[in-house]
Amino acid sequence: MTTFTCSAKMSNPEFLAWTGERQQHIETVLARLIPSQQVLPHRLHEAMRYASLGGGKRIRPLLTYASGLLSQATPAHLDVAATAVELIHAYSLVHDDLPCMDNDTLRRGKPTCHIEFDEATALLAGDALQTLAFDLLSNLPAAASPAAQLKMVGLLAHAAGSHGMAGGQAIDLGAVGQQLSLPELEQMHILKTGALIRASVMLGAYAGDTLPAQELKQLDHFAKCIGLAFQVVDDVLDAESNSATLGKTAGKDAEQNKPTYVSLMGLRDAKAKAQELLQAARASLQPFGDTAQHLLSLAEFIVARPF
Amino acid sequence: MTTFTCSAKMSNPEFLAWTGERQQHIETVLARLIPSQQVLPHRLHEAMRYASLGGGKRIRPLLTYASGLLSQATPAHLDVAATAVELIHAYSLVHDDLPCMDNDTLRRGKPTCHIEFDEATALLAGDALQTLAFDLLSNLPAAASPAAQLKMVGLLAHAAGSHGMAGGQAIDLGAVGQQLSLPELEQMHILKTGALIRASVMLGAYAGDTLPAQELKQLDHFAKCIGLAFQVVDDVLDAESNSATLGKTAGKDAEQNKPTYVSLMGLRDAKAKAQELLQAARASLQPFGDTAQHLLSLAEFIVARPF
Repeated sequence: MTTFTCSAKMSNPEFLAWTGERQQHIETVLARLIPSQQVLPHRLHEAMRYASLGGGKRIRPLLTYASGLLSQATPAHLDVAATAVELIHAYSLVHDDLPCMDNDTLRRGKPTCHIEFDEATALLAGDALQTLAFDLLSNLPAAASPAAQLKMVGLLAHAAGSHGMAGGQAIDLGAVGQQLSLPELEQMHILKTGALIRASVMLGAYAGDTLPAQELKQLDHFAKCIGLAFQVVDDVLDAESNSATLGKTAGKDAEQNKPTYVSLMGLRDAKAKAQELLQAARASLQPFGDTAQHLLSLAEFIVARPF
Repeated sequence: MTTFTCSAKMSNPEFLAWTGERQQHIETVLARLIPSQQVLPHRLHEAMRYASLGGGKRIRPLLTYASGLLSQATPAHLDVAATAVELIHAYSLVHDDLPCMDNDTLRRGKPTCHIEFDEATALLAGDALQTLAFDLLSNLPAAASPAAQLKMVGLLAHAAGSHGMAGGQAIDLGAVGQQLSLPELEQMHILKTGALIRASVMLGAYAGDTLPAQELKQLDHFAKCIGLAFQVVDDVLDAESNSATLGKTAGKDAEQNKPTYVSLMGLRDAKAKAQELLQAARASLQPFGDTAQHLLSLAEFIVARPF
């Protein structure tokens, strides 16, 4: 499992202990909630588990758990919500890696799902991981009322579909070799990465006590800021890590002629933008006081992360 | 659009008028609820519409509408439920047709989605059609209470995932060239085709007034019988149509060395099994009297259909 590395910005030992414990916990929860490979169809379940277990920073579940502290959601409800967002994320990675998309052979240091199994199994595993997210989020208790839970399902579905993640991927697909403007690039990332990150935060909030509308609005703004910051930092890391380790002036994105924050703004302005987004995210959390400490630390981690 | 052809078993003009009107209606509803291709991302929405509109018998929505007559569900609720099941069906066809699965180039007389667009777009369109089913079923009013609606989401998700449709497809994938026993074949079809047909019926029931548990059980048995009958008849038609038109003794399934009811039972026994299932389906509807007339006619159509 990828553990959090300590940086100047996130040296809070309590936060590091919390993330480590939550990362282990969500692994256990996923292992319990994804059907065993002993259950028919064995190979499909094996592929679903392969694609979801044993790796990843689990940023989205961490956001759900941290946000659940604001609404005092019960642990069992948060487990279901955190699992649902992670399964949507896992499905998107499996399908993204397929030959007709990014054609990636490695993911988290392991062969991608279609390499380890085969393309048809990877396709079905991705499909079934998406379905499982909605299955668990509707069939297990995940909120104080059916109305709140239905709202959570609707929120996750909207974030994952053509108005969210899948839509962002489609725009990304059409953007290779295109000259996107900064607003167009931003719109793509708001959908592709941002929508699910926002859903991860909001699901934690809806899983517990009903928060006042104004607080939900602040929280949504926080989530929107860190969703964008996540992508800006991704672009910065892609450009920098390749420059450092491969001696190139730009990384994989530039190689694929994909527009990025770095290609459109330059490295310095992109870094400044990430810091601005972090400031805005921090400001949005003020009404919540200390309860939001883990959410704030996660935002800082997202901007300062070394990978 | 595929219209229903009159046969000896289903010459009821009222039923034919009803199916024609419902088929036109669900087309209008789908056209309204699937995002317009004027909305970003244009190409993704265009592919989603291409894969869902303008074709098909709409068996699943018809079952939902017919079953909704038993629970006196409101028309708007049934529209949402019927759309959700049809979108799951449409997504499964898009992914089934992909090169890594059945590699089909024609569907309903038109080029398949990945031929008309491209593989990546078809993959995303299938993904987004699945998500849209859950988006609509949770974000639009579809039942008398949030609890009933959440139950509907859970029912559809369970029917579509690895314990249902996707699981059946995975077993089918592993069955090519294998010798399945009759119980194994039956289990595969109960998942692959049967689960979504059952969900189509049950969603109509849950969309309205709460039915007594015993009636829900009878209805579920009806749905299970017609789900299986649907597949048995598919196998019979595959064997017979090819025999007649191509002069072969068996059709596409036998060619692909896929186990079928016909290959395991012989043509005569397979036909008899379809009739037995129809009898059992008919018996299950008795408690509902005349209200279930359309459901019964649909069952008769499924067994007597010429395609």
